[in-house]
Amino acid sequence: MAQKNRKTPKQKRKYKTVNSVPGTVTYVGEKKSLKTVVDIVNYNKNLCDFNTSNKVEDAFDFKGKEHVTWININGLYNTTEIEKLGKHYNLHPLVLEDIVTTNQRAKIEEYEDYLFIVFKMLHFKDDEEIVYEHMSLVVGENYLLTFQEADGDVFDDLRDRIRNSKGRIRNARADYLMYAILDAVVDNYFTVIEAEGDKIEDLEERLFLQETSTNEITSDIQKQKREILKIRRTVFPFREVVNKLEKSEWKYIDPRTNNYLRNLYDHMIQVNESIDLYREMIWGLMDLYMTNISNKMNEVMKVLTIIATIFIPLTFIAGIYGMNFENMPELHYEHGYIIVWAIMIIILIIMLIYFRKKKWI
Amino acid sequence: MAQKNRKTPKQKRKYKTVNSVPGTVTYVGEKKSLKTVVDIVNYNKNLCDFNTSNKVEDAFDFKGKEHVTWININGLYNTTEIEKLGKHYNLHPLVLEDIVTTNQRAKIEEYEDYLFIVFKMLHFKDDEEIVYEHMSLVVGENYLLTFQEADGDVFDDLRDRIRNSKGRIRNARADYLMYAILDAVVDNYFTVIEAEGDKIEDLEERLFLQETSTNEITSDIQKQKREILKIRRTVFPFREVVNKLEKSEWKYIDPRTNNYLRNLYDHMIQVNESIDLYREMIWGLMDLYMTNISNKMNEVMKVLTIIATIFIPLTFIAGIYGMNFENMPELHYEHGYIIVWAIMIIILIIMLIYFRKKKWI
Amino acid sequence: MAQKNRKTPKQKRKYKTVNSVPGTVTYVGEKKSLKTVVDIVNYNKNLCDFNTSNKVEDAFDFKGKEHVTWININGLYNTTEIEKLGKHYNLHPLVLEDIVTTNQRAKIEEYEDYLFIVFKMLHFKDDEEIVYEHMSLVVGENYLLTFQEADGDVFDDLRDRIRNSKGRIRNARADYLMYAILDAVVDNYFTVIEAEGDKIEDLEERLFLQETSTNEITSDIQKQKREILKIRRTVFPFREVVNKLEKSEWKYIDPRTNNYLRNLYDHMIQVNESIDLYREMIWGLMDLYMTNISNKMNEVMKVLTIIATIFIPLTFIAGIYGMNFENMPELHYEHGYIIVWAIMIIILIIMLIYFRKKKWI
Amino acid sequence: MAQKNRKTPKQKRKYKTVNSVPGTVTYVGEKKSLKTVVDIVNYNKNLCDFNTSNKVEDAFDFKGKEHVTWININGLYNTTEIEKLGKHYNLHPLVLEDIVTTNQRAKIEEYEDYLFIVFKMLHFKDDEEIVYEHMSLVVGENYLLTFQEADGDVFDDLRDRIRNSKGRIRNARADYLMYAILDAVVDNYFTVIEAEGDKIEDLEERLFLQETSTNEITSDIQKQKREILKIRRTVFPFREVVNKLEKSEWKYIDPRTNNYLRNLYDHMIQVNESIDLYREMIWGLMDLYMTNISNKMNEVMKVLTIIATIFIPLTFIAGIYGMNFENMPELHYEHGYIIVWAIMIIILIIMLIYFRKKKWI
Amino acid sequence: MAQKNRKTPKQKRKYKTVNSVPGTVTYVGEKKSLKTVVDIVNYNKNLCDFNTSNKVEDAFDFKGKEHVTWININGLYNTTEIEKLGKHYNLHPLVLEDIVTTNQRAKIEEYEDYLFIVFKMLHFKDDEEIVYEHMSLVVGENYLLTFQEADGDVFDDLRDRIRNSKGRIRNARADYLMYAILDAVVDNYFTVIEAEGDKIEDLEERLFLQETSTNEITSDIQKQKREILKIRRTVFPFREVVNKLEKSEWKYIDPRTNNYLRNLYDHMIQVNESIDLYREMIWGLMDLYMTNISNKMNEVMKVLTIIATIFIPLTFIAGIYGMNFENMPELHYEHGYIIVWAIMIIILIIMLIYFRKKKWI
Repeated sequence: MAQKNRKTPKQKRKYKTVNSVPGTVTYVGEKKSLKTVVDIVNYNKNLCDFNTSNKVEDAFDFKGKEHVTWININGLYNTTEIEKLGKHYNLHPLVLEDIVTTNQRAKIEEYEDYLFIVFKMLHFKDDEEIVYEHMSLVVGENYLLTFQEADGDVFDDLRDRIRNSKGRIRNARADYLMYAILDAVVDNYFTVIEAEGDKIEDLEERLFLQETSTNEITSDIQKQKREILKIRRTVFPFREVVNKLEKSEWKYIDPRTNNYLRNLYDHMIQVNESIDLYREMIWGLMDLYMTNISNKMNEVMKVLTIIATIFIPLTFIAGIYGMNFENMPELHYEHGYIIVWAIMIIILIIMLIYFRKKKWI
Repeated sequence: MAQKNRKTPKQKRKYKTVNSVPGTVTYVGEKKSLKTVVDIVNYNKNLCDFNTSNKVEDAFDFKGKEHVTWININGLYNTTEIEKLGKHYNLHPLVLEDIVTTNQRAKIEEYEDYLFIVFKMLHFKDDEEIVYEHMSLVVGENYLLTFQEADGDVFDDLRDRIRNSKGRIRNARADYLMYAILDAVVDNYFTVIEAEGDKIEDLEERLFLQETSTNEITSDIQKQKREILKIRRTVFPFREVVNKLEKSEWKYIDPRTNNYLRNLYDHMIQVNESIDLYREMIWGLMDLYMTNISNKMNEVMKVLTIIATIFIPLTFIAGIYGMNFENMPELHYEHGYIIVWAIMIIILIIMLIYFRKKKWI
Repeated sequence: MAQKNRKTPKQKRKYKTVNSVPGTVTYVGEKKSLKTVVDIVNYNKNLCDFNTSNKVEDAFDFKGKEHVTWININGLYNTTEIEKLGKHYNLHPLVLEDIVTTNQRAKIEEYEDYLFIVFKMLHFKDDEEIVYEHMSLVVGENYLLTFQEADGDVFDDLRDRIRNSKGRIRNARADYLMYAILDAVVDNYFTVIEAEGDKIEDLEERLFLQETSTNEITSDIQKQKREILKIRRTVFPFREVVNKLEKSEWKYIDPRTNNYLRNLYDHMIQVNESIDLYREMIWGLMDLYMTNISNKMNEVMKVLTIIATIFIPLTFIAGIYGMNFENMPELHYEHGYIIVWAIMIIILIIMLIYFRKKKWI
Repeated sequence: MAQKNRKTPKQKRKYKTVNSVPGTVTYVGEKKSLKTVVDIVNYNKNLCDFNTSNKVEDAFDFKGKEHVTWININGLYNTTEIEKLGKHYNLHPLVLEDIVTTNQRAKIEEYEDYLFIVFKMLHFKDDEEIVYEHMSLVVGENYLLTFQEADGDVFDDLRDRIRNSKGRIRNARADYLMYAILDAVVDNYFTVIEAEGDKIEDLEERLFLQETSTNEITSDIQKQKREILKIRRTVFPFREVVNKLEKSEWKYIDPRTNNYLRNLYDHMIQVNESIDLYREMIWGLMDLYMTNISNKMNEVMKVLTIIATIFIPLTFIAGIYGMNFENMPELHYEHGYIIVWAIMIIILIIMLIYFRKKKWI
Repeated sequence: MAQKNRKTPKQKRKYKTVNSVPGTVTYVGEKKSLKTVVDIVNYNKNLCDFNTSNKVEDAFDFKGKEHVTWININGLYNTTEIEKLGKHYNLHPLVLEDIVTTNQRAKIEEYEDYLFIVFKMLHFKDDEEIVYEHMSLVVGENYLLTFQEADGDVFDDLRDRIRNSKGRIRNARADYLMYAILDAVVDNYFTVIEAEGDKIEDLEERLFLQETSTNEITSDIQKQKREILKIRRTVFPFREVVNKLEKSEWKYIDPRTNNYLRNLYDHMIQVNESIDLYREMIWGLMDLYMTNISNKMNEVMKVLTIIATIFIPLTFIAGIYGMNFENMPELHYEHGYIIVWAIMIIILIIMLIYFRKKKWI
């Protein structure tokens, strides 16, 4: 699995098709979803209406002033549908290009009639692998378009709140819906980072208990480091986006929404601080690991040295009296053998005292 | 205990409930205190009145212009009480949300009629463990609300000064009370950091004396490093808060109080410098420790090399004359045994001279 | 080849001829191409004309207002040709000096009538070696001059678009052509960086599989690190150039082109982030490599220690009973030999238990 | 002594008394001097008068417009004297608090009628230990107050210049006296840093000569590193103070003095650069030391490996022919013994060739 | 020589005489040249005149408006000459102090009638040692004064251009002469840095070939690192000086000169980038060296382990059958000796297979 994991970023690294005409809408990504699904939500204080279609034209009728229209496109592969929607809402060709360029980093662009925000949505697939889903958002006076790479998002709770009119949402306009969507995205950043933090703490525990083999834990730390770096790269630019959004004086942002955006910015600061904290922790783990290795090496070397230092001289003495010279008077002493043993034991004791003094044993 | 200590941050890492409606007042924390206690202090130049209750309504009567009212809430679990108080003092829903969100980082927000400040209060429990208590402060023209997670704070001395009218406090308004509270908080930062500094110096002493076992001291250094990082993360944003407070032109801050706030900002700079100093010191300890390990390893290796280098060749010579060849003329020399000893001693002396030249002994 | 590769930068390090008169047009570089080739393209909405010559004078006739003229010079060695063109288009002597100074870093200079941009064009030669080609661009109201060190560039696709009138190009003026050229350059930055990223991942795989010899991989990592550093040094300043270009209020830049330049700036940010990511990854590889070395050393030492610790004491025992004392009672026991074997096996078992407890085996 | 040295910072780490009333004048420090001595200097172009007293009241008479009055207080323990002086010159309570708070970092505060500057004066005691003396300076239109922790300062030369009317000093007002005092302080920073630089170079020499024992030099490097860090911490904030002073538009600073202050700021930049240089050098020493350790370890290991690799196989051969099998034909060869020797010598030569090829010998 | 080299900086570290009167002109330096030589150059479009004298008064006659006068002083020891010139040209005392203070870092000061620039001139002495020569430059409307520590500079080419009227120089005024001088200085920075770069590449080659002894190369790397750091420290501040010069709106700088100054600033950026590149490269060398050491150590340990692990058990077996027990049945087997050999060879083969599996051989 480690193998597979290391392979994934390779496939992802595909940038804008080189040398294509600027403004061309060509899908660049992993084609997570081949078919395009269109979710249309219409609501105001009194009514609320959910539709799903697979033709983008079905969304066109809802363009009006009476209610907020949220059109969500799942699947970026079918670029003609996106171009149709773009023409209908009068989007700039470069905006359409950014919508389908899945490696575009987070940014915000202010146009006369709409705001365009690109970012990554992070959520877990099967509670294990992190999905980095490219997402774009276009918000106008009374409509909001979202573009996702695939099915599955983090907005179910938000849809519930719209359906059941929980909180301010049904009384507010498209700018608050934009806030609610971004807030859900940032909340999921927390969830993902928390989970990564738990993994780091598990690694730390394993390091302390020294349960797992040396090679496995090194590779796990490396994998975790890379994951954190990837999250950091994906999430960090979004803070600047939220900051610009808060500072923006775009005509359709209600002053009351500004308090909420300030709050969102606070959360993004906290997200980034958490990421940096875990980054620091994982570097600390590497240090701890290297220290462990050094400690163990030291201990191993001490054992070797003690054994060798004691027995090599003794073996030498035994070797001496194993020689076959004709004329070795000690061999014929009555107590020669006992004396040699005594000498050996004295040497042993001296050695042990020396090691004790050196605090090796 | 190290085990327990490493576990604590895990439990704490709970952010705002994911996907909740923004502005919802849901307590997020460790529920340090289940019941809510309300301390009410009323004072002006002439009178001074202390009350304790467990209903927040008891505090409502004191809303007036004649005296400063300080309402302190201990325990954030019972959110309905906090919401009642919030309604009475007309606080924004997001303020109430931040009051009970215990992982909120330090920040200041200026509203029309009140200032809202969130921070962490640090003090020692049983003179050993650092308590990181989430605290919020709302200050208006003549009232001040504080919200603490649990019983026990660092304001006893301040209450004494109010009771006995020491210093300026009874002659000043709520803005000076705010300063006095923040000053007490910052003073306790010093106390906590000083204590951590002492621990670092103890660690250093132990490293120099090499008293304790290698594994224990590594783990202690790691623990200390983590504690310093945690303090840093908690305390650093507060400097910016104090800076904004000093720069603020909020209508109810007396110009005379500004000198005091500037002083407070100076102290916060000093707090942060101390933290960074200790952080640098603890990194230095790790380096020192690694150097110690290397030095010891080097010494161990030297001993092993000296012993092995001396005795392995000698043992070889002894081995030679332990061979059982029929035709070994040396064995029959009259002084063969003495000559072999002489050769061995010469080799030993040469070796010792070599080691001396290499400065190994 | 590693040898050759390390030599290359040495030859390249030739700066402006020391103590020459400022504004002198002396070619400084590797003389990639000795002859000068002039490509002339003329186009407007209706017509499009491609010419190639080796005399710069052939380009002079095309100076007019009706169409955009793109004059491309390949080969900077023949400085007189460049001086002639410079005089014709009224370029500042320092501009001409920069055009032929191939170690000039990327910069932009705004003159009254033209913009001057210097940068490096990166492309692959034989799909393997990166070519760092010095390139300059002068753009006026309706002409654009490019100067390249050698044949071969990244604009074939762009020429196709001009020829076949794909996209906006034939309807736009020289400022859009400038954008299109810079866009092609930046797209090639992506291609080159992607290829380097693949090499880094290959290195990582080899490190994990531990296939190749230790020395080879160290040298490969070093080479890769150096390549990344070189790309970084070459490409980084170009971001600032694009930024200045986007901010520039030069009279001949169409407001519609500004959206495209903003997009280009976005891409440059992404280019620089990718470079920094790979830089970080390659540093991580070095760490990983050092950790591997330490792990292996540890393992080697463990094996040595286990073997030595087991057999040195046993050999000592064997040595004892190899002594030739006359009076060694054990030698005459009937089961002496068996007992010695038993003792040895017991020692062995104790050792193994000790190692198991230490988790060495 | 190392022990003592490491203890000192512990005693120093005493901050503002926790929870005291803000503005309280309580001496916090090491009580370097118990009695308070007052030096009073009065001068103008024509006259110059030196007095010493131990009552601060003696200084009050000199308050006038005709001459510059410099009142220097040695000893901060007797806070009542300082409070009297503060009342006489109308100083803010927080200024008085900062004067006696010896751990206050360098800062400058501009009041209506006076400037207040706090900093550390560094000088050597007994040419060996660095004294970090807390010093404050209050300068008004025609008076200047200095407050020192203890006897002994760096102003003897300045007093001489006043006495003998050397340079501009007697023709200028209190602002130039302030400059002269700060200049003397900065000059002493140079002296102290130079001396530390010499110590670092001595350490480096010792490292190269490898004269001293390993543990001693590690501890000396650590001590030096800490000293440099302490100087840095003390001196760095003063640069900002001088910068603010130069930029200040306080009414009593003569425009002619500004040139001198700019010069002083230049010197402070140079002081800080020198400190950073030595900091970098001492980090380099640690690296050098670690490299030395590794080199030595490598050499030690090589010696061990060479000896062991040569003699262990030879000893094995000797062991073979020391076996007592009945049927060992080699033992009975006439030249068996010679042949064994020959084999051993051949093995030895092969080993030596191998080591030579590996460049180990 | 390494010894001598390490000593040099010690002698150089002499700052402004401590406690001297500010504005005193006291020479501080290494007294490279005792006698003062005055070179006077006068030129305009039509005439050009070179004089050398050793009295500064000889330069006074040339003060006029018709031509540019360049007075160059070699040797700063004789401060009275410099003071005379200073009085003649009305220079501020602090300017004179900076002229003779050879450790002054690069800076620019704008006075009413003249610009004052201090910097270091770098050139090679005997093509080997870098000379860091303190140099100052004062430029007025039609005169330019330069002050050098010693004979020998980098302006011979410039003098030639004046003499032979090459380039713009004779048609321009003193501001262009200033540019020409600074340009020559910056060109020499390139020469020096290039030479250092070559040395670093030689070091790298030696590291790869592993030709030289370990201690020698460590010391060479350290020396090179220090040289680069010294150049960096000397040259870096000059970039800011050139930047200020380019931004300056001083009345006597011709707008046409500004293009040249902008070019000069570009070169200084490139100089600083080169220095940082070499700094990074030399740090990389240290890393590479440490990796080499680790690789070698690993290899050494492997050889030791392989030899010891093979022969220690075999020696043990030989030891067993060297014991002198009476009752050792194996000794009397007919093929006992052969069997023991067989067992030993089997053990050897198993070991070799094990090592092969571990990829040690």
